[in-house]
Amino acid sequence: MPRKLVECVPNVSEGRDKEAVAVMAEAIRSVPNVFLLDVQSDPDHHRSVFTFVGEPEAVAEAVFRLFEAALPRIDLRHHRGEHPRMGAVDVVPLVPVRGVKMADCVELAKKVGAEIWRRFHVPVYLYGEAATRPERADLSEIRKGEFEGFFEKIKDPQWAPDFGDPVVHPTAGVTAVGAREFLIAFNVNLGTSDLRVAKEIAKAVRFSSGGLRYVKALGMELKERGIVQVSMNLTNFRKTPLPRVLELVRREAARFGVPVVGTEIVGLIPEEALVQVAEYYLQLEKFSPAQVLERRIEEALGGA
Amino acid sequence: MPRKLVECVPNVSEGRDKEAVAVMAEAIRSVPNVFLLDVQSDPDHHRSVFTFVGEPEAVAEAVFRLFEAALPRIDLRHHRGEHPRMGAVDVVPLVPVRGVKMADCVELAKKVGAEIWRRFHVPVYLYGEAATRPERADLSEIRKGEFEGFFEKIKDPQWAPDFGDPVVHPTAGVTAVGAREFLIAFNVNLGTSDLRVAKEIAKAVRFSSGGLRYVKALGMELKERGIVQVSMNLTNFRKTPLPRVLELVRREAARFGVPVVGTEIVGLIPEEALVQVAEYYLQLEKFSPAQVLERRIEEALGGA
Repeated sequence: MPRKLVECVPNVSEGRDKEAVAVMAEAIRSVPNVFLLDVQSDPDHHRSVFTFVGEPEAVAEAVFRLFEAALPRIDLRHHRGEHPRMGAVDVVPLVPVRGVKMADCVELAKKVGAEIWRRFHVPVYLYGEAATRPERADLSEIRKGEFEGFFEKIKDPQWAPDFGDPVVHPTAGVTAVGAREFLIAFNVNLGTSDLRVAKEIAKAVRFSSGGLRYVKALGMELKERGIVQVSMNLTNFRKTPLPRVLELVRREAARFGVPVVGTEIVGLIPEEALVQVAEYYLQLEKFSPAQVLERRIEEALGGA
Repeated sequence: MPRKLVECVPNVSEGRDKEAVAVMAEAIRSVPNVFLLDVQSDPDHHRSVFTFVGEPEAVAEAVFRLFEAALPRIDLRHHRGEHPRMGAVDVVPLVPVRGVKMADCVELAKKVGAEIWRRFHVPVYLYGEAATRPERADLSEIRKGEFEGFFEKIKDPQWAPDFGDPVVHPTAGVTAVGAREFLIAFNVNLGTSDLRVAKEIAKAVRFSSGGLRYVKALGMELKERGIVQVSMNLTNFRKTPLPRVLELVRREAARFGVPVVGTEIVGLIPEEALVQVAEYYLQLEKFSPAQVLERRIEEALGGA
């Protein structure tokens, strides 16, 4: 396994033409030492999400090849889907996974952003941890107005792109490139059918209404099972650890006399988060991730 | 990383001559795709422990090369140490780590055992999960009498070797080859200086005095910190999971009004055990180890 690993999760505005999506996937895969882990297309959203990892340089190259494949195949003038979008390649998040710091991903976002403008004449906005202004940290703020509105929005000096002239690409719009932490989708199932309980707990734990800083949460029904769920995104598990979130949910549920009956992790979780869970609940003193057998084996393989 | 991974932890009766130990380590390392993770020598025990991993075939070859290196360098007729021993290469445990079942390691132990007799004329006893009789499951039962006593013991039909004639190798004795689960060394620190509390808890949780089946436990003092510790070996974390052991210790400690102030994992822990801890405390439903990001990346690497 490479020593330095960045995850990249670009979203493109094509979720219906399977052949086009396959060409884009192949473009990413064509870069040596880039590993495409997942492709999800949503026809209703008319949008696809690629998940790939690699060393920083290789990831940058894969982003450029994705642009090469996507731009001739997507024309936003004829694009209608449920998901808001402003670019053919709408957003390019870079996530530090291993041997790489957030600052490295911010640096990479800047390099990639500058190059996207240079090569493809698509204006670029830096967002997330790479944002150059507070109001650009939040992707949805940047995206307001979408493709159609950007022809005006881009002329406002407050919304001048970070890279490129204030000229929207006629078919590919504009792109947001940013750095963020790994996102963990974590759901907690509750032993009640009362949706209000899930909604109240979601309100208590999420950032937007006074809860934990890196938690987004919604209350939902699981109708088939006759129970409710607090559905969460943990946007920075290093600073707001998963076990702390669960224990806070558990305490809030206890106020209603409701037990936690189960949880689920949707998609992927980094080994570091598992180590964090073990450290928390086992009360581990001085545990090092190098004590994980597989990590040690990797190190031995790397040194071979 | 290889798909199939066996860990091997041979103990040899040499813990003082650093050069001899280095030659043995090099013999293991010389096998392609074998990864030596650790070497520990104890001069008082006059014994060294090598930890290495690899695919089953490669691990077998490394064991043979270890014998080639060890036999000319160890003469048990002149060996005195604190640790009981019956062979120059005293014991060869094989541990399933990944993509390999216990039955595969039992098979491997038999293959390796037969070959040790054929090549080196050292009689071999199968132990642990590979044992051919109940009394041979426990290594210490086999080792009773040690090297010096084996010249008589081996003539007893009950103690006929599994491989080889009943003739002790004149300088290298006999060897035990077996299969066992990965061993986790797990210590729980208690908020008291009263050693009796640690001893009582150890007695409650360990197999030998009525506790959990795959737990060995001792009460010890941590004098520098003024506290006591329950020091444990978990000999089968799949069947007696680490979180269950900790929670039982915690309950027993509560009887004395004593809190768990911390824990430690000594040495290595497999990723699977971390997943187990997360599943237990997070109450995870349907979690798959394939959801660990690094595992997914490995799979992608393997498929590349």
